[in-house]
Amino acid sequence: MQAEIITIGDEILIGQIVDTNSAFIAKQLNKIGVSVYQITSVQDEEEHILKSLKEAEENADIIILTGGLGPTKDDITKNTLAAYFQDTLVQDEAVLENIKFLWENYVQKPLSQLNIDQALIPSKAIALMNKVGSAPGMWMEKGNKTFISLPGVPFEMETLIQEEVLPRLQKKYKSPYILHRTLLTYGLGESSLAELIEDWEANLPKHIKLAYLPNLGKVRLRISAKGFHKEQIIKEVDEQIQLLLPLIKEYFTGFEDLEETIEALVAKQFIAQNKTLSAAESCTGGKIAERITEVPGASNYFKGSIVSYATEVKTSVLKVSEELIKKHSVVSAEVAEAMAVSALKLFETDYAIATTGNAGPTKGDSDAEVGTVYIAIARKGFVYSEKYMLGNHRVKVINKAVNKAFEMLQKEFLKNR
Amino acid sequence: MQAEIITIGDEILIGQIVDTNSAFIAKQLNKIGVSVYQITSVQDEEEHILKSLKEAEENADIIILTGGLGPTKDDITKNTLAAYFQDTLVQDEAVLENIKFLWENYVQKPLSQLNIDQALIPSKAIALMNKVGSAPGMWMEKGNKTFISLPGVPFEMETLIQEEVLPRLQKKYKSPYILHRTLLTYGLGESSLAELIEDWEANLPKHIKLAYLPNLGKVRLRISAKGFHKEQIIKEVDEQIQLLLPLIKEYFTGFEDLEETIEALVAKQFIAQNKTLSAAESCTGGKIAERITEVPGASNYFKGSIVSYATEVKTSVLKVSEELIKKHSVVSAEVAEAMAVSALKLFETDYAIATTGNAGPTKGDSDAEVGTVYIAIARKGFVYSEKYMLGNHRVKVINKAVNKAFEMLQKEFLKNR
Repeated sequence: MQAEIITIGDEILIGQIVDTNSAFIAKQLNKIGVSVYQITSVQDEEEHILKSLKEAEENADIIILTGGLGPTKDDITKNTLAAYFQDTLVQDEAVLENIKFLWENYVQKPLSQLNIDQALIPSKAIALMNKVGSAPGMWMEKGNKTFISLPGVPFEMETLIQEEVLPRLQKKYKSPYILHRTLLTYGLGESSLAELIEDWEANLPKHIKLAYLPNLGKVRLRISAKGFHKEQIIKEVDEQIQLLLPLIKEYFTGFEDLEETIEALVAKQFIAQNKTLSAAESCTGGKIAERITEVPGASNYFKGSIVSYATEVKTSVLKVSEELIKKHSVVSAEVAEAMAVSALKLFETDYAIATTGNAGPTKGDSDAEVGTVYIAIARKGFVYSEKYMLGNHRVKVINKAVNKAFEMLQKEFLKNR
Repeated sequence: MQAEIITIGDEILIGQIVDTNSAFIAKQLNKIGVSVYQITSVQDEEEHILKSLKEAEENADIIILTGGLGPTKDDITKNTLAAYFQDTLVQDEAVLENIKFLWENYVQKPLSQLNIDQALIPSKAIALMNKVGSAPGMWMEKGNKTFISLPGVPFEMETLIQEEVLPRLQKKYKSPYILHRTLLTYGLGESSLAELIEDWEANLPKHIKLAYLPNLGKVRLRISAKGFHKEQIIKEVDEQIQLLLPLIKEYFTGFEDLEETIEALVAKQFIAQNKTLSAAESCTGGKIAERITEVPGASNYFKGSIVSYATEVKTSVLKVSEELIKKHSVVSAEVAEAMAVSALKLFETDYAIATTGNAGPTKGDSDAEVGTVYIAIARKGFVYSEKYMLGNHRVKVINKAVNKAFEMLQKEFLKNR
């Protein structure tokens, strides 16, 4: 079963936004055994959309479009889809009811004609109800091919994929099982790693694929297989992993589950062990807390964070001694550790994590080189910190530091098991 | 002048990574007057890459490929390109010198055959020297069409685009000037905004395009034009903007192209008036602090935030009275205001902003309906709050609340001017 994803919108082709929808959809399709043959991003232009629909129909069984479903004139996907199916637009009463409901409850303004027109869909289409926005999804069939059109706003698209598209696809198509297992390795370059596992790779069965994903000191090895016998696939891949692991023992740090971000993994561990967490953030400016709280259920283990952006807040709110800051500078292992210990006490948690660093572009309150970040973890009677040099691009430094913080939390748990 | 971007790699098609390279390339091409016709992501599979090369050659003058240039077996772009050009691979001495230099200075391990083979390029190709990695870029021509192959690692690709690709393209092709101007508006939905500027939009000259980009309480209006007379294009677009501005006065906050997001505007106002800000965040979980601190210079006015995610932290750290919480519930105007007043005192700032709400998916510590958010602003001797109903999707509620908070901060400044 093959799918093609078509994302529609000039904003993608001028680089104004990064297309994150495709990765989300591809990941979800993979979970139900549907491979993505191609992802195509096209302009808000009828002729171009028609051409891509035709090509996609030749290549794939399932064609998923996102974007171009808004109420304004630059949104032309719906009319183009009607043209492709030689169909006309008709008002869908259920969609109109949904729009009226949303307007009454959230918008509290009168419905305009533009809003009402969002209930128009091709007569051959089944409406996929959008509970979080006014543009419905649409499901259209042509022989055994399925065309699905979804709004481009990520959270609307995501809800529709989860609640409407996946269940319907699973009902309609019998799909194979797709397995991806990704092994994380640190400390060896891509080519050296390839040499190390050359014989193993050469002996892989043809239906098991290996990919190298290098990224600054870390290389991920992805093993993929596909087939109708789920247990068989899992067994075969596991056997290969058992052969591989002794070869890369020194460099292997764990599995990256495709479905689980590191913050979700950390959340699971805290909740399973009934432990609580707090934070004290300087250079990460609240982003650790934000990433934690974006995962539903965060309130089960996360108590809070103090964002001590100004140096004086480290003394006034976090009670880090002025002397310590003067002696070691505000960007130092000592201050990071004192911040973590302080958060542990203030929030009365089992663990606390703290960051202090200089994200640039200028040096700020410390002499530390731009990109220097200290991260500390405290638990009762114990605190330690690590120093990182994370480059010279502000947003990258912040994001890398946040990732490092989650990595440290995860390792801390592995150590204490 | 039209370009097509082809990104190669199974990791994109299984959703393991988000393709950020395309947006970067598209933005850079736009700056030198090259439009992107299409972005296509394909698998590491020879037949598929050949097919996409053929289609791209029909549609575009410039074809840019990224990915598949690593040293391992799953990287097949170079061989496929040679096949497409009916060419063979030969060793490029300058590339080999560069690899040797990188290995001596950064890797400090002996060169393996896999590394040496990275100096093989099609005989018809010009090597684009990669100063930060071992895979060279390649430039190949076929009549007036140009094929450019770049590594997929973002910072290697970015360096090659800036230093090698753009200067060569500007030398080879005479391009028009492309102008995008994006106006940021807050506080009015897409369809209401469209009605408000309906007449203006209908009277736009044909060569000036308008697009609506809605996103969680904010709508961006992008005006685009293209032509060979740069001054003329700028003048025409500016005239249209002067006609548009009075219509959207209440909602307009700035231009995105000038990097005037609402958080940058708020930052400017605080810094200009020499005022300081702190925050106490519950449902927004640190995201207000994070958005503030992503703007360089934030340390000039932002002192910090307390993320009081657990209810008990509101009493233990923020000193909101238990009684008040019991009486009004944790999601209430009274608690939001008490949090803001408390942050004002703790951080000793001129202003403080606080949020409390229920982002869902479940009700949590309060009976408040999912989507209910209270935001309070405090300054010396004064505090007020507003209630918002922000829908029923967790990430959407959080992001909308953050946007509302910035809106309120900006309005507060306009009031006090």
